[in-house]
Amino acid sequence: MVVGRVGDVAPAEILEKGVKGVGMKVLISEMDGAPNFVLRVFDIEPGGHTPYHTHDWEHEIYVLEGTGAVKQGDEEHPLEKDSFALIVPGEEHQFLNKGDGVFRFTCVVPKL
Amino acid sequence: MVVGRVGDVAPAEILEKGVKGVGMKVLISEMDGAPNFVLRVFDIEPGGHTPYHTHDWEHEIYVLEGTGAVKQGDEEHPLEKDSFALIVPGEEHQFLNKGDGVFRFTCVVPKL
Repeated sequence: MVVGRVGDVAPAEILEKGVKGVGMKVLISEMDGAPNFVLRVFDIEPGGHTPYHTHDWEHEIYVLEGTGAVKQGDEEHPLEKDSFALIVPGEEHQFLNKGDGVFRFTCVVPKL
Repeated sequence: MVVGRVGDVAPAEILEKGVKGVGMKVLISEMDGAPNFVLRVFDIEPGGHTPYHTHDWEHEIYVLEGTGAVKQGDEEHPLEKDSFALIVPGEEHQFLNKGDGVFRFTCVVPKL
C-alpha cells in the first residue's frame, strides 16, 4: 500500500513544444508497484494549455479545481470542478485553462 | 471523447456484505470506449465503510472531500482531501469515513 498527499509530491514542469504553464505530478506509477496504470495530477496556470496532439493511449481525467476546457478540432467542451472526460487512443485533444485560477485535474494513463 | 459531470451520473448503492452507507458512480467504463480501466467515484456516509476484503486487482484512489482512512490489519492510514493511495492486488483493505460529512474519492480499477 502506498498513501501520500499531493502537496508532498514534487512537480515537474512540462517543457514539450506547444505547452504553456503546465506542471505535472506523478502520484502513483509502476515504481510504486502499480501494475497497470499511472495516476498523475496536472496544474495548468491561467492562460496555459497542454499541446494539441494525439497519441496511442487514453486519458481518463477528473477535474479537481478551476475552469477549463478540452478542445478537439473546432469544438471546446467546458470542464469545471467535478467534470470528467475520456479521451480514447488516437483522438486529438488539448486541455486549456479558461479561468483566473489554477485548472487542476487528475489524469490516468496506462503504464509505459 | 466523453465529457460529463459527476452530478449527472446516477449512483448505485453498494449492498455487499460488510458495506455500510456507500454509494458508487461509474463515470468512465468499457461502455464508453475506455480500453483499459474504469473511473468510479465513491461516496461514504458518516459512519460508513467499504468491506474489509481483498481481490486480484488494484485500486488507485484520490480523495476529493472529507476525512477518512484506509485500514489494513491493525493499521489505519488517514486520508483527507488531496490524499492518494495505491492498493496493490492481493492487499487487504477497507475504506472508512472518519468525519462528520461525506467522504468522497475517485477509484480507478482495471476493466473486468
